[in-house]
Amino acid sequence: MAKNGNGNGKSNGNGRAHGKANGTGNGSARPHANGKSGTGPRPVPVRPGHQSESKAPRGTLIIIGGHEDKEHDMLILRAVAERARSGKLVLVTVASEEPDEMWKDYQKVFGKLGVKRMEHLHVDTRAEAKLEENHGVLDGATVVFLTGGEQLKLTSQLGDSPIFEKIHDVYMRGGTIAGTSAGASVMCETMLVSGSASESHRIGSALRMAPGFGLIAGVIIDQHFAERGRIGRLTAAVAQNPRILGIGIDEDTAIVCEDHHCFRVLGAGAVYVVDGEDVTYSNLTDEESERTLSVFGVRLHILSMGDEFDMSTREPSSRPAEEIEKELVGRN
Amino acid sequence: MAKNGNGNGKSNGNGRAHGKANGTGNGSARPHANGKSGTGPRPVPVRPGHQSESKAPRGTLIIIGGHEDKEHDMLILRAVAERARSGKLVLVTVASEEPDEMWKDYQKVFGKLGVKRMEHLHVDTRAEAKLEENHGVLDGATVVFLTGGEQLKLTSQLGDSPIFEKIHDVYMRGGTIAGTSAGASVMCETMLVSGSASESHRIGSALRMAPGFGLIAGVIIDQHFAERGRIGRLTAAVAQNPRILGIGIDEDTAIVCEDHHCFRVLGAGAVYVVDGEDVTYSNLTDEESERTLSVFGVRLHILSMGDEFDMSTREPSSRPAEEIEKELVGRN
Repeated sequence: MAKNGNGNGKSNGNGRAHGKANGTGNGSARPHANGKSGTGPRPVPVRPGHQSESKAPRGTLIIIGGHEDKEHDMLILRAVAERARSGKLVLVTVASEEPDEMWKDYQKVFGKLGVKRMEHLHVDTRAEAKLEENHGVLDGATVVFLTGGEQLKLTSQLGDSPIFEKIHDVYMRGGTIAGTSAGASVMCETMLVSGSASESHRIGSALRMAPGFGLIAGVIIDQHFAERGRIGRLTAAVAQNPRILGIGIDEDTAIVCEDHHCFRVLGAGAVYVVDGEDVTYSNLTDEESERTLSVFGVRLHILSMGDEFDMSTREPSSRPAEEIEKELVGRN
Repeated sequence: MAKNGNGNGKSNGNGRAHGKANGTGNGSARPHANGKSGTGPRPVPVRPGHQSESKAPRGTLIIIGGHEDKEHDMLILRAVAERARSGKLVLVTVASEEPDEMWKDYQKVFGKLGVKRMEHLHVDTRAEAKLEENHGVLDGATVVFLTGGEQLKLTSQLGDSPIFEKIHDVYMRGGTIAGTSAGASVMCETMLVSGSASESHRIGSALRMAPGFGLIAGVIIDQHFAERGRIGRLTAAVAQNPRILGIGIDEDTAIVCEDHHCFRVLGAGAVYVVDGEDVTYSNLTDEESERTLSVFGVRLHILSMGDEFDMSTREPSSRPAEEIEKELVGRN
């Protein structure tokens, strides 16, 4: 069980539920054994509470809060580019309404940053996601970059598809998965889809969540964080199950997880960690739906460049910003 | 000393520094003994760490996060109106650029809510603030309502003036001081004047603070809180001295302090309490000014209607929203 050797994939969750909601839940859509990636059994996303049992991923996640700098020092994209040097960077624009423009923009930027091989992956339907000509571009990729747009497009079109499997495989084998904005939210087991940020959270208001790609366990990620004033909605998500750690990432800011339980902060803004472990009270189930949410005893950490966070112990630690800047980027 | 019986007022802080900054620090401007309010020595605002030594205020503060409902159930203004019933409500529009419009609006609303006696107090200069015809309207007031606008107009024009003294006196003798938006911020010893909320706090960025009216001790208040995404700037203010508790109040939401160390929440939104007591680290003095602020270990409480907070123990407690609604408003 721990090794996921049963090969039928029936309990592999994540993208699955979503695929069904999109009407593609017929048996033929299940890729039982795509031997191409060379790992045998179907990959299992890292799952809550099961990290030690399943194979730990060897790759890196770079999770960006949107609007990363593409003109000046480009710290974050530089860190992404560095990881692609020896291999291929695949830009996945599935979330976006303007895939071709995005491809042109990123191609230019990553070109400047020294990336030699880049490919563009875009599909508009789940059927396209299953075509070899589409998922084939991921073979040999060392970096996959998920652009912004709408996170449900990513999960509904790619969940449980060969594209997702190959992305996951890149991560398991030591590659880098980077995502910005919608591409950041989608990294989680359960992702935030939408929710008002113009006022504090009302108990019954629509805080939409959906199953994500599950590349990072035990956290829920929100992006454009300070810019869109999202502390209320992230805290509301955490209050629903304090097992989940809330991570709010500002624009032009990223967390870099080279180890599946630790991350470091890179970029201009801040990363907010909302820890509900010591929450003593919430009115979530007590009050009528039009009432405003109360939550007592949230632990909040505001991290900036250089800082690290251990997701297993839930403890932050500080490092001078300059040090990390040199370490992450200086190698370039 | 505790009784402030020396009568020269030299060490009475607060409004003073500001008065001087506005060029009115000449001896003649000091009202050494305005016998009119009948309290003898000059009133001392409640001061940090000196609450037990100075006379405790007997009045109520209603501190509103701006844009309080004026059309529907008017919960907050109803609670203000109730306290004026037997006496006089004075509307102070000094913060505003449109004093006459504000007066008309509030006159109408408070009239609907049963307030029989209302007066309008507006001055454009410190000289006007000293005229008997202006501060005289405060004699016999049971409620003073400070409108929104710019908080520095309130402190620079009223600080250390007979108007401020009479407002303070109303509070000490058991009256109610209500303030919305700028009128809320000004209640503190040290008030937030401005600071960016569109991004996380940069260490060297202009988080402007100034001495406030000092009616509530040991806290710093921010308003329009969720609506303008101000968690970053409030946390930055708290990080500068965690002795101060940060209180962020949403629009159409108020804290009601009937006791100088406790408050209850009233209204539609939330109140955020930022407690820096357990902060383990901040890079405030370590990093260059363009870096983003890090703060580890902030305790955050989100309170909604019905909830109470004890500022001396820094502990929240919950009460059903309906209960408080009836209690605070039902008496009307």
